Amino acid sequence: MKNSKSKPVVVIGSIALDTVKTPYGEVQNVLGGSATFFTLAARLFAPVQVVGVIGEDFPEKYLKVFKNSKADLEGLLKLPGKTFRWSGSYENPNEAITHDTQLNVFGEFDPRLPEHYRKTPYVFLANIHPALQERVLSQLEGKPLIACDTMNHWISSHRKELIALYKNVHIVFLNEGEAKLLTGEKLLVRAARQIYSTGPQWVIIKKGEHGVLGFDGKDFITLPGFPTEQVVDTTGAGDSFAGAFMGYLAKKGGLKKNIIQEALAYATVVASFTVEGFSIQGLKKMTCSALEKRYQKFLKMAGV
Amino acid sequence: MKNSKSKPVVVIGSIALDTVKTPYGEVQNVLGGSATFFTLAARLFAPVQVVGVIGEDFPEKYLKVFKNSKADLEGLLKLPGKTFRWSGSYENPNEAITHDTQLNVFGEFDPRLPEHYRKTPYVFLANIHPALQERVLSQLEGKPLIACDTMNHWISSHRKELIALYKNVHIVFLNEGEAKLLTGEKLLVRAARQIYSTGPQWVIIKKGEHGVLGFDGKDFITLPGFPTEQVVDTTGAGDSFAGAFMGYLAKKGGLKKNIIQEALAYATVVASFTVEGFSIQGLKKMTCSALEKRYQKFLKMAGV
Repeated sequence: MKNSKSKPVVVIGSIALDTVKTPYGEVQNVLGGSATFFTLAARLFAPVQVVGVIGEDFPEKYLKVFKNSKADLEGLLKLPGKTFRWSGSYENPNEAITHDTQLNVFGEFDPRLPEHYRKTPYVFLANIHPALQERVLSQLEGKPLIACDTMNHWISSHRKELIALYKNVHIVFLNEGEAKLLTGEKLLVRAARQIYSTGPQWVIIKKGEHGVLGFDGKDFITLPGFPTEQVVDTTGAGDSFAGAFMGYLAKKGGLKKNIIQEALAYATVVASFTVEGFSIQGLKKMTCSALEKRYQKFLKMAGV
Repeated sequence: MKNSKSKPVVVIGSIALDTVKTPYGEVQNVLGGSATFFTLAARLFAPVQVVGVIGEDFPEKYLKVFKNSKADLEGLLKLPGKTFRWSGSYENPNEAITHDTQLNVFGEFDPRLPEHYRKTPYVFLANIHPALQERVLSQLEGKPLIACDTMNHWISSHRKELIALYKNVHIVFLNEGEAKLLTGEKLLVRAARQIYSTGPQWVIIKKGEHGVLGFDGKDFITLPGFPTEQVVDTTGAGDSFAGAFMGYLAKKGGLKKNIIQEALAYATVVASFTVEGFSIQGLKKMTCSALEKRYQKFLKMAGV
């Protein structure tokens, strides 16, 4: 699906070893992290450059996953110490309960873009501290298209920095709970409008199984979720959603509404693969032809 | 929008005087009830026949609403006593909290179809006791297309009768909470499959602001909600959804998938008008041209 016209995308985010429990089972120290899921989704559409950090204990087999993805790993730093670990569970597929977070080397993460990443035209700031997200911006040259994600924790504790960041990015991703927390609105359409007023050109609110709402200050885009029957583990769904979305923009170019609409539809379908397995298992099954087949099915379901 | 080919639809349901409190205000003894909202939505697409009961206190101005709707009111019974009253509030637009229910004459409701309703080709059994719904079926002649709705109360207390009814109807409507309660499933796609296995040809799960999921035993239809910013009162949203849906089928004929898809899209848009005002105020604003305009906007938002 990636082609010779696809521009590169750089992702700045976490690489983790996750321990996850869902009604379908439990896995320990498996590959996770926002940069991981983003990379494995975006690579189908565009070349990916990774900025992240791993510890000395990072398993060789997981490093191979990145190598096999053909991502540019010059920005992937290995530091003395242990890799970031997250452990959590889900009673409700839309809501992770964190049991434990061990930042380890991720606590010292100070993202530095290698020279040749600095002019990369598509940039994704995954869910990290807003101050670090801002620090990445200062390293960029040219006029890249920038998108960012966040999480409840930063909204509660670093609201000001986050809203300041929104002035400097084109696209902001939030999930439903985050959009409501940030704005105090109960209705997502109002939340979208309020977030738009802080500066970005597109507000993308991910609603999990209920799909996505996009807003560009004038018009809404609304897509349902892909109704998968196999929701094993939703960890990484949002990051792979963003990965497919940004990869598609990097392939097609720019922010035109029809491109955004198609990118959201691909992102929805990619996320539906992610949730069908633990860790990266769902994404691994997702060949280009499986993705394309499900994409067509999704368009048909939605009457497109 | 109704045309000379539209077949009639009969609705069997409640007519109520509602007292409702929402974050937008409070109204007392206003026109409500499933048959009311259904009628005002369906009439745009097809002639409507009403089976319901009112008390002696039913205000003349509300009777006029029915008369102005051009519905056939031969099945509308006036009994000695008071009209059915419901009072409730919403903290969350998707969930009504009932404060008080006074059945009054509705407690004696024993639906009898006038002779000329019995061959009506489209039948909607609104949310009433499953035994009464079944009693309506026994009065029907010919092979009408039958749809039914229900509520939590009947699922909890009359589960067996409800599932028995599902064998004898073509389309069942439930909202998200009802589908989960009935099946014990957390995932709606699985709930839809389980409900389908009880007998109907189509299962329609209404997800409020999140849209709708349809299932015909093989394929899913999924549509997002219309992102309205003006959710004043969601009372009647589901009944007007069903009204528009059944009216559209009665206009177009039959159960073909593309007709169902269009009917669901119209139903979504009609429900978005309903929630924009208390009681029937939102529906009253909905002229044919306003409906058509929003329908086209909805298709565009969804990329159709």
